[in-house]
Amino acid sequence: MIYLDHAAATPVSQKVLQAMKPYFTDDFFNPSAAYLPAKKVAADYETAKGTIAHAIGAKANDLVITGGATEANNLAFTALETELKLHSGPHRSLPSPRGSRAISRAAALRNTPSWSVNSVLYLETEHDSIRAVAQKYSGIAIKVLPNGLVDLKDLKSKITDETILISMSLVNNEIGTIQPLAEVSALVKNIRIDRLKRGIETPIYLHSDASQALNLLDINVARLGVDMMTLNAAKIYGPKGVGALYVSHDVKLQPISVGGGQEQGLRSGTENVPGVIGFAEAVCEAKEHLNGNRKKYANFKKILLSELENYELINKKHSLDNFVVLCYNGIDAERLIYLLEEQNIYVATGAACAASKGKKSHVLKAIGLSDSQIAGSLRLTLGETNSEEQIHEAARIINSVVSSEKERLRNG
Amino acid sequence: MIYLDHAAATPVSQKVLQAMKPYFTDDFFNPSAAYLPAKKVAADYETAKGTIAHAIGAKANDLVITGGATEANNLAFTALETELKLHSGPHRSLPSPRGSRAISRAAALRNTPSWSVNSVLYLETEHDSIRAVAQKYSGIAIKVLPNGLVDLKDLKSKITDETILISMSLVNNEIGTIQPLAEVSALVKNIRIDRLKRGIETPIYLHSDASQALNLLDINVARLGVDMMTLNAAKIYGPKGVGALYVSHDVKLQPISVGGGQEQGLRSGTENVPGVIGFAEAVCEAKEHLNGNRKKYANFKKILLSELENYELINKKHSLDNFVVLCYNGIDAERLIYLLEEQNIYVATGAACAASKGKKSHVLKAIGLSDSQIAGSLRLTLGETNSEEQIHEAARIINSVVSSEKERLRNG
Repeated sequence: MIYLDHAAATPVSQKVLQAMKPYFTDDFFNPSAAYLPAKKVAADYETAKGTIAHAIGAKANDLVITGGATEANNLAFTALETELKLHSGPHRSLPSPRGSRAISRAAALRNTPSWSVNSVLYLETEHDSIRAVAQKYSGIAIKVLPNGLVDLKDLKSKITDETILISMSLVNNEIGTIQPLAEVSALVKNIRIDRLKRGIETPIYLHSDASQALNLLDINVARLGVDMMTLNAAKIYGPKGVGALYVSHDVKLQPISVGGGQEQGLRSGTENVPGVIGFAEAVCEAKEHLNGNRKKYANFKKILLSELENYELINKKHSLDNFVVLCYNGIDAERLIYLLEEQNIYVATGAACAASKGKKSHVLKAIGLSDSQIAGSLRLTLGETNSEEQIHEAARIINSVVSSEKERLRNG
Repeated sequence: MIYLDHAAATPVSQKVLQAMKPYFTDDFFNPSAAYLPAKKVAADYETAKGTIAHAIGAKANDLVITGGATEANNLAFTALETELKLHSGPHRSLPSPRGSRAISRAAALRNTPSWSVNSVLYLETEHDSIRAVAQKYSGIAIKVLPNGLVDLKDLKSKITDETILISMSLVNNEIGTIQPLAEVSALVKNIRIDRLKRGIETPIYLHSDASQALNLLDINVARLGVDMMTLNAAKIYGPKGVGALYVSHDVKLQPISVGGGQEQGLRSGTENVPGVIGFAEAVCEAKEHLNGNRKKYANFKKILLSELENYELINKKHSLDNFVVLCYNGIDAERLIYLLEEQNIYVATGAACAASKGKKSHVLKAIGLSDSQIAGSLRLTLGETNSEEQIHEAARIINSVVSSEKERLRNG
């Protein structure tokens, strides 16, 4: 099997599985229990959180562990609920006397909260989990350039005094584009200074979903200037069902689930100890092999681009080394997937979740591809399961499958 | 080690771990991906959901898989959000012309939703995750009798035309009381008929947290008459971080997290495949050994009650066989925990989450225990890790620790 869909899912590494095992069977205690073995489990859990946090230049307390990246993304957007609470409670009048407020008076008078259209800005190429939650808060999309990077002009034009949250993935999950977050955060910082000067209290936060980034980019939240960042164990050879949200001290969130008060009250429920231990081990492995892996995947990509024939490369620049997005114009990529599968090669057309619903990729559309180009696009994402031999083999088989498909179309 | 705190956490059984393993490493594919190995994973996931559902007389589609019981409990309460949406949107006036509505007009005019005090009723002995979410919806507590059972008179007196949700655990997590859910659901059914007659549209639902019940009670949602039921893998020798909410077709919920649309849109995010596979295996084991385990724990309890000295049994009746709650009046149970720990015996004073915060048990208070009785109460919960020898040994050591503690107090 040649698996080229590491952006959709990664296997749990042997080291991660070994690290998790004792916490399933021997150190299974409830971290909230009063006796020593349980307190040891609680301490190991905190240490693991610290390891994950340290990898992005943060501390254990800055992280809220969640049931995955989607939940972390949803949690990030509760910053808007905090604003809603602040400005619609019985003790505060609305609009605030000191400045512009993001929640419309009309919305406050209805019971279903509604938002000024500029409260939330998100990149049009975001993953479904951001798009869905952004739309819940009436968010509007920021355009990207044909190279996949954020259109900073469009972003600037859409930021108003009502804007509370900007959400922009560090690495796009379909084409691997790495966004210039530091540039965006510098812009956000200037807006903060300007609002302060003008007595406008509405905060503005930058959130970034870094699910795809942690094992190939050296991430530091302070350097990037993000206020919140989503992490995902399942994309970096850790277990499914575990994610985390980095939250800076300035941001106040609302819990999605209430209960026992775990995770500083932001995410109640008995801690998924094995999951977090595995997440931490996956982070360690990612950091250890960061440079080696980047070189390896850059080399794999080079091999593919030189040995593959008659393709158009979609993600030419600004992209993570393990993303290779190819277009075979005039060919149905869905058919290619099945033909490649018969040869034990597994690739994707768009995001996995989008793929299963037969939707056209909104990302490829956003960067300006035609319907026919989109229909002919394959996403190859390289990873730990691949060897150099596999890459040569994959190039050979893809060439052969594509050319026989072209032959079939000519004769059909 | 003699572990007598199985209500706080259970180890993952070897069979469960073996069942999960291939889904970490080999069958790791994203269930949403288009190729066959991923579709096989998706099918295995659905089969596992079916196994869990079947154990309570339901179908795979009736379950929403969550990140644990707390999240499932929170999700159940979104039935109230549905009501809020129905009766405060732009297309509906409020209050409804056809009958009494649960959401106050005053609340609808504020932006933070608030609820009639009778919208939510919950048992005063509920777990923190129910109490916290019930309080979020201004819920009021129903009294229990000194034997721990629901005070049906108090329940009846608190149900009004505004009541939308009644939440009552099948088995209490501190004293193991089994509630007469079928009796409560019969009452709910009568209320529905009466509301229908009087043209009152407000629905009324019965939710039950069955986290502690699945491995010792034969549960059937139709027989119990519940509309929603919370299940928990971590309490039945399955993995932490996985739970489920059974939802009958009549109930409409709102997603806590939005995104890719997994779990019928009620719980987005890549499925925790190994977790659900493990959950299903744990359910199978529980069902297989149900009768054997009940006999075993009934015998263990009998041994404890005959060999222990000078205790008062708190949960005399209506309690799950593996719960033994003892009171040593005048002795500090917190101290007993530490003294027993030195002898490698691990027990609890109250719920694990409450224990770590040094709060007095609200459950023991609700059944009428004095502060001194509460302070002297130990919770022993028996489980798979215990042998008959361990139970004899535990009785001997507890007797010895208690009597030397009494001696110390006499001489102190």
